[in-house]
Amino acid sequence: MSRAAQLLTRSRRLARAPASASASASGLGGAAVPLFWPLNAARMASQNSFRIEYDTFGELKLPNDKYYGAPTGRSTMNFKIGGVTERMPTPVIKAFGILKRATAEANQDYGLDPKLANAIMKTADEVAEGKLNDHFPLVVWQTGSGTQTIINVNEGIRGELGSKKPVHPNDHVNKSQSSNDTFPTAMHIAAAIEVHEVLLLGLQKLHHALEAKSKEFAQIIKIGRTHTQDAVPLTLGQEFSGYVQQVKYAMSRTKAAMPRIDELTAGGPAVGTGLNTRIGFAEKVAAKVAALTGLPFVTAPRKFEALAAHDLSGAMNTTACSLMKIANDIRFLGSGPRSGLGELILPENELGSSIMPGKVNPTQCEAMTMVAAQVMGNHVAVTVGGSNGHFELNVFKPMMIKNALHSARLLGDALVSFTENCVVGIQLMNESLMLVTALSLHIVYDKAATIAKTAHKNGSTLKETAIELGYLTAEQFDEWVKPKDMLGPK
Amino acid sequence: MSRAAQLLTRSRRLARAPASASASASGLGGAAVPLFWPLNAARMASQNSFRIEYDTFGELKLPNDKYYGAPTGRSTMNFKIGGVTERMPTPVIKAFGILKRATAEANQDYGLDPKLANAIMKTADEVAEGKLNDHFPLVVWQTGSGTQTIINVNEGIRGELGSKKPVHPNDHVNKSQSSNDTFPTAMHIAAAIEVHEVLLLGLQKLHHALEAKSKEFAQIIKIGRTHTQDAVPLTLGQEFSGYVQQVKYAMSRTKAAMPRIDELTAGGPAVGTGLNTRIGFAEKVAAKVAALTGLPFVTAPRKFEALAAHDLSGAMNTTACSLMKIANDIRFLGSGPRSGLGELILPENELGSSIMPGKVNPTQCEAMTMVAAQVMGNHVAVTVGGSNGHFELNVFKPMMIKNALHSARLLGDALVSFTENCVVGIQLMNESLMLVTALSLHIVYDKAATIAKTAHKNGSTLKETAIELGYLTAEQFDEWVKPKDMLGPK
Amino acid sequence: MSRAAQLLTRSRRLARAPASASASASGLGGAAVPLFWPLNAARMASQNSFRIEYDTFGELKLPNDKYYGAPTGRSTMNFKIGGVTERMPTPVIKAFGILKRATAEANQDYGLDPKLANAIMKTADEVAEGKLNDHFPLVVWQTGSGTQTIINVNEGIRGELGSKKPVHPNDHVNKSQSSNDTFPTAMHIAAAIEVHEVLLLGLQKLHHALEAKSKEFAQIIKIGRTHTQDAVPLTLGQEFSGYVQQVKYAMSRTKAAMPRIDELTAGGPAVGTGLNTRIGFAEKVAAKVAALTGLPFVTAPRKFEALAAHDLSGAMNTTACSLMKIANDIRFLGSGPRSGLGELILPENELGSSIMPGKVNPTQCEAMTMVAAQVMGNHVAVTVGGSNGHFELNVFKPMMIKNALHSARLLGDALVSFTENCVVGIQLMNESLMLVTALSLHIVYDKAATIAKTAHKNGSTLKETAIELGYLTAEQFDEWVKPKDMLGPK
Amino acid sequence: MSRAAQLLTRSRRLARAPASASASASGLGGAAVPLFWPLNAARMASQNSFRIEYDTFGELKLPNDKYYGAPTGRSTMNFKIGGVTERMPTPVIKAFGILKRATAEANQDYGLDPKLANAIMKTADEVAEGKLNDHFPLVVWQTGSGTQTIINVNEGIRGELGSKKPVHPNDHVNKSQSSNDTFPTAMHIAAAIEVHEVLLLGLQKLHHALEAKSKEFAQIIKIGRTHTQDAVPLTLGQEFSGYVQQVKYAMSRTKAAMPRIDELTAGGPAVGTGLNTRIGFAEKVAAKVAALTGLPFVTAPRKFEALAAHDLSGAMNTTACSLMKIANDIRFLGSGPRSGLGELILPENELGSSIMPGKVNPTQCEAMTMVAAQVMGNHVAVTVGGSNGHFELNVFKPMMIKNALHSARLLGDALVSFTENCVVGIQLMNESLMLVTALSLHIVYDKAATIAKTAHKNGSTLKETAIELGYLTAEQFDEWVKPKDMLGPK
Repeated sequence: MSRAAQLLTRSRRLARAPASASASASGLGGAAVPLFWPLNAARMASQNSFRIEYDTFGELKLPNDKYYGAPTGRSTMNFKIGGVTERMPTPVIKAFGILKRATAEANQDYGLDPKLANAIMKTADEVAEGKLNDHFPLVVWQTGSGTQTIINVNEGIRGELGSKKPVHPNDHVNKSQSSNDTFPTAMHIAAAIEVHEVLLLGLQKLHHALEAKSKEFAQIIKIGRTHTQDAVPLTLGQEFSGYVQQVKYAMSRTKAAMPRIDELTAGGPAVGTGLNTRIGFAEKVAAKVAALTGLPFVTAPRKFEALAAHDLSGAMNTTACSLMKIANDIRFLGSGPRSGLGELILPENELGSSIMPGKVNPTQCEAMTMVAAQVMGNHVAVTVGGSNGHFELNVFKPMMIKNALHSARLLGDALVSFTENCVVGIQLMNESLMLVTALSLHIVYDKAATIAKTAHKNGSTLKETAIELGYLTAEQFDEWVKPKDMLGPK
Repeated sequence: MSRAAQLLTRSRRLARAPASASASASGLGGAAVPLFWPLNAARMASQNSFRIEYDTFGELKLPNDKYYGAPTGRSTMNFKIGGVTERMPTPVIKAFGILKRATAEANQDYGLDPKLANAIMKTADEVAEGKLNDHFPLVVWQTGSGTQTIINVNEGIRGELGSKKPVHPNDHVNKSQSSNDTFPTAMHIAAAIEVHEVLLLGLQKLHHALEAKSKEFAQIIKIGRTHTQDAVPLTLGQEFSGYVQQVKYAMSRTKAAMPRIDELTAGGPAVGTGLNTRIGFAEKVAAKVAALTGLPFVTAPRKFEALAAHDLSGAMNTTACSLMKIANDIRFLGSGPRSGLGELILPENELGSSIMPGKVNPTQCEAMTMVAAQVMGNHVAVTVGGSNGHFELNVFKPMMIKNALHSARLLGDALVSFTENCVVGIQLMNESLMLVTALSLHIVYDKAATIAKTAHKNGSTLKETAIELGYLTAEQFDEWVKPKDMLGPK
Repeated sequence: MSRAAQLLTRSRRLARAPASASASASGLGGAAVPLFWPLNAARMASQNSFRIEYDTFGELKLPNDKYYGAPTGRSTMNFKIGGVTERMPTPVIKAFGILKRATAEANQDYGLDPKLANAIMKTADEVAEGKLNDHFPLVVWQTGSGTQTIINVNEGIRGELGSKKPVHPNDHVNKSQSSNDTFPTAMHIAAAIEVHEVLLLGLQKLHHALEAKSKEFAQIIKIGRTHTQDAVPLTLGQEFSGYVQQVKYAMSRTKAAMPRIDELTAGGPAVGTGLNTRIGFAEKVAAKVAALTGLPFVTAPRKFEALAAHDLSGAMNTTACSLMKIANDIRFLGSGPRSGLGELILPENELGSSIMPGKVNPTQCEAMTMVAAQVMGNHVAVTVGGSNGHFELNVFKPMMIKNALHSARLLGDALVSFTENCVVGIQLMNESLMLVTALSLHIVYDKAATIAKTAHKNGSTLKETAIELGYLTAEQFDEWVKPKDMLGPK
Repeated sequence: MSRAAQLLTRSRRLARAPASASASASGLGGAAVPLFWPLNAARMASQNSFRIEYDTFGELKLPNDKYYGAPTGRSTMNFKIGGVTERMPTPVIKAFGILKRATAEANQDYGLDPKLANAIMKTADEVAEGKLNDHFPLVVWQTGSGTQTIINVNEGIRGELGSKKPVHPNDHVNKSQSSNDTFPTAMHIAAAIEVHEVLLLGLQKLHHALEAKSKEFAQIIKIGRTHTQDAVPLTLGQEFSGYVQQVKYAMSRTKAAMPRIDELTAGGPAVGTGLNTRIGFAEKVAAKVAALTGLPFVTAPRKFEALAAHDLSGAMNTTACSLMKIANDIRFLGSGPRSGLGELILPENELGSSIMPGKVNPTQCEAMTMVAAQVMGNHVAVTVGGSNGHFELNVFKPMMIKNALHSARLLGDALVSFTENCVVGIQLMNESLMLVTALSLHIVYDKAATIAKTAHKNGSTLKETAIELGYLTAEQFDEWVKPKDMLGPK
């Protein structure tokens, strides 16, 4: 509803601009409003109405309520692969909005007619805000440079249905740009935003929650487990501090990947050489993108490589490993309630089973570990794509950014879900009994081994056995085996 | 339109039951038919109206135009991961429609009230036809057994908004079933259907097109290339027959994976033991699914393992390798037009560049190779998921089937797109000159090597050089070096 | 020692042949000895002595006790990558022995001098038996067609140190062959042998042991676990039968990959066209390899694709998933002894810890799961390699076969180790208590849920709670909840 | 030779220590030197002689010339997986040498008898120098904590065959340590050393060579290629500068992974808590390792996670992508000589083909790309292993470090080989003609498109066509289309 209203407003608003712009090209504008209303009216009447556009391949019917033109229409016909869920991720579209605003500003600085520049900026802003998502119907599985999406963007931002005037998609919106430099730039902008707004946010949330639990459980002495076997004790707080550390590392390595993502190739069109651009354009664009996003973007020192999506994907892959481990641990520590490890009680958020009443399952752990597996798979897709570039262009870019953004979003969302619906609600089931194996500091190893093996064989305690074997006295045992002393260096 | 009508009809049909439920929320229910109209009217008036449902966790507001109940509503709240594009793939939902019809039939055979059974079957059919997709809002990133989707299905099929009567989601729709056996069954049904309707179809199309090209090019002698270097000649038809063979192998290996997918676990609920089912139920369900789909489903000999999605994913992974190779070859053979290999002309489907006018790019090859990379990544996700099952349940199943279906759909669609928009339109650019290296049959290897090296060094022809070096006569050269003789065994 | 003697004998035996080149078999040669002795004597005196050989690049010092010639020597200088552990896997070298015998036989049928053919066959047999492994120093990281190993083989089989007479490495040993057809053939032979002698054997052993355990544990009722949570009961025998089934599937899918591996490309040299060979040669070679190995090799219908290592790798990847799952389960079921699941006692094969005396770790499970992870990684390497072939040759073949053979060997060995040192010795720790959740067949689901939740909350039994809540009587409970009835369909 | 002498010397040197231990086993030790000679003599006489050792599992025959004891002997029997090539990588063994020296020093600081400490240090040094590699026969596929290798190390360093006196493997060599902290520490030391001595060195070499080529080719204007199609020009120097940049990024990301690898867990035994150690021990050990290696090792802030091998593997994975791309480009630019792109001449290092005389293949590119594929596979193995840790221990560590070191070594070696045998020798084949497409700056896009399409269709030049179409004059064309102007921003 309001969406339609907005679109309408926007159409009207933009419609006038060219009007007063007094015809940058003859025939543009003029009576504006009257001429324009019928179009909008028609659109209101039927969203299924079509208009005809022409490209070098001939004419094409296009939906009347969409800004995109013939090339985009052709792409939807030539690449019927995967359907709606396979569309270019919206963060990329939004990033293009930001980029197109920045390049319009820069182009204006270099002489682009301010009226045209302003028209571009206004629509670009709407794209950046995600208001025009429906106007970007193309799937990821298109040209490997993302060119068709770029054309889609240029058309979408022209601000006029079915016309290349006043704003020409290529001559104005795309001025000083090419697929080769803008698509990677949009990739980097999108990736950086997702990392900051989704991934790092999620990691911080989990970090915070785990740290709180680590403190809450600081005094709970429990048995450690190595090889899934009973080992020496530690506190549950220490165990959780291990998870805290992993999440902290995940944040570091994510941030360590960002410097290469913060480098933008905009201003290095065609084959990375910067053909058709002005000196300083690249730096200007990067600075403007930085200003618009508040992120430390700079222009890339060389425009020939910018597969930094890789580094990010690699960092997320390792992060996924840590999260898989943490979620696995938590579900096993919460396994039971009667025939499991039964140390933790995980929050019950839904009915567990359609056949076993009362069952509570660690579903958040399951969602998290599935996400982790997906991220690992996505990373391989990025790896394969990244390794197959040829010459001046890698043609796996839409696929690569799709996977990188997919991973960032899934991880970020899953981190929040896991934190809020699981971690913060974790409770203790019962304080486990601990085993004591500190003897080897005091008697020779081989004797300690004999005690442990005999105790296990006879089902007796370590103390009884040790005394029985004559290796030590009860007093010695009590003095040597103090759980609290086993938790760290002396 | 007709969809709304159908829904309406369906609602009316099933509406009578709740009559006695007397208005769980004002305006809901009442004196059946007459009372029901207002509801639909209300729904028409505002799609944003809500009703209240209860589960063991309390009350929940649910959209009034959706069949699903509180558990599904809860899941949407507990698993805000990834958004709309991450929903359980529709082929799984449709497969559940088929399965639920089959189990309803089987349950009726074992005594379920025919009225209930019929009500279930009718809605199940609609689910199978994809008419109720909007009623399945859950994402893949939920409980790892897919239980929440199963509950969603059971609720969706109950046929009554906000009521468990007359059809109870669990007691009737889910009768003799559990997550553990139905989700894998739906996975297998979905996978088998996608394989047959999408993947194999796509492979057949490409196979056919390549075979036609192989025949068309049967007489074109060209230089072979090994190590990307000029090698001995072959015909372009032979080269394409290599691709034909690869696609043929892809079909064989896909089919070789199917026997394990054709085994269904339905009828082995809970932990694979078949608890709460009747003897013969499993066989009956499999037979009914086979009848409904026309595919050779059988009941699994043991219900404890059914990760056959794996085998399929493995087959698709290898297929992706072949397609990557074929698409790579074709784009390189079509590279140029002036500074490439320039043997093939690929169809021009769209404008190639926003900065380089007139450029034609092998975009279909690019879409195909991106798809191939994605399939390889998806396969790793499936592998990681498949290896992490614990005890009586693998909790990576939604993720696994998502990836397997994603791969099948992408491959199938890309195969059709690649075939129709590229392969069938491939033309010859020019018949390459061929090099002749058959000499080694006639003179000793070391002399032949010397000729070739000298010729290359001096930029002279093999013939000139050979004669100059005194290794053979012009007549011998002409007799020995006959391109057509070089194409196969004598 | 005896190895040196053999080499000496062999050298002497073969040494005679070149002399007069008479005597294809008995006695091999005539005057020879005097001429040859000095060389061997020199070798005896010092294994560090060198001889000089020449190739088109100049002269080269070669170790005097190695059969290989200048090209192999050059390769060791040009590819100093990874060291000794990276040598071409011995199964490939042995397979070349088989292949070279087969091609020598076939070439003899087509007219090769029987004396030469016999000389080739004798050395080829030694290569096939692994007696000459030291003569194949090349690493996998060489030319991607394996050409350097092929040359190494041809030189190794020539039977004469530093000479191309009487047996010429290229004109005789390699007759009617090229890298493009022989290396893939050797790959297939090696893979098939490893599969039969190592992988399948290992799978059979585990299958057998698991089946025995499944029977042994047929009467042990235990709690099932889904989502790592207590679920309905099954017998331990049923649980193990799940593993049995997985191993059975592993065998099927391995065998399903073999038909494509059984197809040999030998006889399709150069670019797959069969240039320089005779009609029937390919079939003859395949038949002879089949006879020599007892495996059902045939000639490939088309020689242009033979990346079947892929299919095998894919099958092993899925198998690795199953083994990861089984080994994981077993280590968790054996976790404890006091703070784990504690159902199984795994054999104690070594001391568990250097700091925790008496600890017993599931080390065989650990070796198995590490192997599984390696196999998954190897599979990705094979996938990446397999997808990057260009035109008439894939240049990742040595890497691909290395990984495929690595996986086969590791899996096969680990299967035997895991079976003998773990599975056969598994014992019961204690028969777990089981939970009973069969109530939902008799009372409505919501009531059953309430019982279970209340019982869990209060720590009381299901029976007490059910009666307390007034949902059923003690008699009903006893009648309805019978463990043995919960194990399967009625 | 000298190796044997060294061992002998070492044996003698260490032999004195046990002297005072007075014969822990009969015949062993005694009056030191005199008594010891016979043993060594015996060893010289026959390397196949055995001695008997005992552990808690009974007696065991061990080779008399090996320092390892019964536990290591048992491991070789229990883990017959993969054979000699699967042994624990020597960099890990050497790293243990360094660690054991460092811990001996630290233990001495905390009171360990200097004689014992010195004995340990001496042997540890030999281990660190790789002199005792033969004494470490264990394969990677053992206990997942590497415990058996640790025991092997402790035994190997005890300095006395078959005795636990004077140096006790566990009480002295392993003092204040456990598997859980020392194996990860050795992993990190080994990884850091390989990175610095092999990987970074290789990257630097390639970086240097590419930079030189980039300068050498600074003036060569050539056609750029995007989508494998002719695009706008750039210089070959610019193209190579893209490679330079990739290698530079590879160095940055490798270094960015090091801070986490530089953190050592030594001093956090058992479950990461530091049980049985002294305060300050961890810091001391890290400082000593840093001093011994000259690398910036520190003690890890928390000892619970140290899977940094992951970060390194991730960095190498991305690096492999870059190298795959570079090597692919170079082989395609060098493809031909007649039917390829033919821009570069790659050095000819060996004979190219056994059937096609004179063929020169890009074999170094092939080795490099095979290595790249292997690294990608290894990375997945590391990922799978890294994600499967449970509780206080990850039991995939030997496999993980094997893969990380494998990748580092292969990359490092391949980088050197590729640089020396290919990159430095690259020459130009011919300066490619370039296409000019700068028109779109001067005339509207649609006209430029028409020119390009018409020119291509008619096979005429852009200039002719442009004039013919009346879009511009010859003068304008010459003014606007200046290759040198197309190489960058103005």
